[in-house]
Amino acid sequence: MNIRDIARISGVGVSTVSRVLNNHPDVKESTRENVLRVIKESNYVPNNSARILKQNNTKNIGVLVKGVFNPFFSELINVIGNKINENKYTMILQQNDYVLEHEVENIISFVKEKRLQGIICLGGNFIDLDEDSFKNIDVPVILTSVNTVSPSGRDKYSTVGINNLQSAYDATDYLIKKGHKNIALMIGEENDFCVSWWRYKGYIKALKDNNIEPNDENLIIGDYDSNIAYKVTLDFLKKRKDITAIFAISDIMAMGVAKAVIDSGLIVGKDISIVGFDGMNISRYYNPGITTIKQPMEEMAIKSVEILFDLLKNKCENQHVLLDTELIERESCADLN
Amino acid sequence: MNIRDIARISGVGVSTVSRVLNNHPDVKESTRENVLRVIKESNYVPNNSARILKQNNTKNIGVLVKGVFNPFFSELINVIGNKINENKYTMILQQNDYVLEHEVENIISFVKEKRLQGIICLGGNFIDLDEDSFKNIDVPVILTSVNTVSPSGRDKYSTVGINNLQSAYDATDYLIKKGHKNIALMIGEENDFCVSWWRYKGYIKALKDNNIEPNDENLIIGDYDSNIAYKVTLDFLKKRKDITAIFAISDIMAMGVAKAVIDSGLIVGKDISIVGFDGMNISRYYNPGITTIKQPMEEMAIKSVEILFDLLKNKCENQHVLLDTELIERESCADLN
Repeated sequence: MNIRDIARISGVGVSTVSRVLNNHPDVKESTRENVLRVIKESNYVPNNSARILKQNNTKNIGVLVKGVFNPFFSELINVIGNKINENKYTMILQQNDYVLEHEVENIISFVKEKRLQGIICLGGNFIDLDEDSFKNIDVPVILTSVNTVSPSGRDKYSTVGINNLQSAYDATDYLIKKGHKNIALMIGEENDFCVSWWRYKGYIKALKDNNIEPNDENLIIGDYDSNIAYKVTLDFLKKRKDITAIFAISDIMAMGVAKAVIDSGLIVGKDISIVGFDGMNISRYYNPGITTIKQPMEEMAIKSVEILFDLLKNKCENQHVLLDTELIERESCADLN
Repeated sequence: MNIRDIARISGVGVSTVSRVLNNHPDVKESTRENVLRVIKESNYVPNNSARILKQNNTKNIGVLVKGVFNPFFSELINVIGNKINENKYTMILQQNDYVLEHEVENIISFVKEKRLQGIICLGGNFIDLDEDSFKNIDVPVILTSVNTVSPSGRDKYSTVGINNLQSAYDATDYLIKKGHKNIALMIGEENDFCVSWWRYKGYIKALKDNNIEPNDENLIIGDYDSNIAYKVTLDFLKKRKDITAIFAISDIMAMGVAKAVIDSGLIVGKDISIVGFDGMNISRYYNPGITTIKQPMEEMAIKSVEILFDLLKNKCENQHVLLDTELIERESCADLN
């Protein structure tokens, strides 16, 4: 079944079928309906593969994700996938956890192997980027929700993210202003020198600005996982009766923390205050509602795809965009003043 | 930079570099380390694209998802992606919500456009499958966590899922045995004739087997969304003071239901009992813990990929696998006896 068969059965010319397929306005409505009915009944699918091969243009955009599991990234992928499809490109999703140890090599091999026209990385550690990091690939690279540490080579890639230091500062300062002094920080992975590192710095800065001496023993590792957050918090609370607040740098960890507080016989928002991070539904619908730093997830996804396609069309240079976060107050924090 | 350059710089032959790249055991350790160092420093990536093109074998497996957003599917995608990569194939992820209205056409055009070697569909409505549905595509089709209604053509595709009717029966019967008679059911979409429909049938059957007359007004629509589940439950509880239990057919809806119960001034597990479905972390860490029907998510993902590759290797015929669910008791249900 090809386009000529469809035209013959529909009783119209091939060019009319083509106009219908391309959503051209210049087709009579009854004709359009008839052609679409014939197409549907015949299971005919316009096969573009040959043309795509001939052009050697796969129109693939890669999305390399640090842990698809993380519901924060799922929400980003959802929006990014829609936007890539709207631009008539294909999203190829790959996880960043199990191929090689080095993130830059992951990007380069992903781009080459899949002949990508561009790549968006969600999360990951990019601590040693420099002028030469992406010299072997000639496609737009967007690092989203990633914090890069090195200042060199920033004209070779784009970033879309938030100010992690300031956001963590705001959360910590909020707790201090409510009278808390012994505030634990739950970070993600121990060797995460990006997001966890910047949020750790914001937490430390807020303590120091308020004349509170940081204590290394107030740092706990939750691995961005509710189960682990729950277990380490249970242990932590047994040893540390002086703690009055825990700031967890993701909402899924904050949920594990909250349950551990409850299972320790303590009351969330009274004995132990909790602040999360991300602004996921779980922080809103938890009992009690968990105060959190809301990230602009949809905006982050839209902006990433927008920059990528602008770069592809040579409509812009590489950009570094910081979006605003918002502290959302709920019932999980006690006022000790 | 090609394999000959790497060999030259490393001071070894091309075949040695090739053995290192293919993880061949027959290479001296110091040589291996030296070659890997040169490869790393030169950013060389073995480029298989030309070979892949020549073979006209893209090695792509499509995963078509009904709502990537759903954390239940995120977890499945995570495992499926890993397994596809282990088999040296590429996962192409596409959402099923916005291209065409008809699910079978979505599959066919996805397979043709992306030249897929196989496809796994997560969720979706497949009510009118027949002998001819997949006649235009010649690759394995696996429907995972989908309930098909029609009995014909089942040798043309495989399914991996659970017994939705029995699982919903178990949840409802559990509530009835605890003395509940006025049990509301929160389903997903109103026109979902698959998962929601079978779970609805299980709920109705349990009521009838226990001599309870089903009441149409006990059916509420939560759209698989915490926000919507929360809003409709708030309204529902205002009108229906007789209800003592709500069975929500997903944990993310159960979370919205629980919060609505709490915000209505009622106590979860005392005034209103709640049972969820899926066995996500949110049901475990919610306060109170929510009784749920646990689906074997990882097993479901692994089985789907296993059948797909067995079909590709002609090692099996199409299969229809039903996996077991488990009712996990937590604190969200009152015993009225």
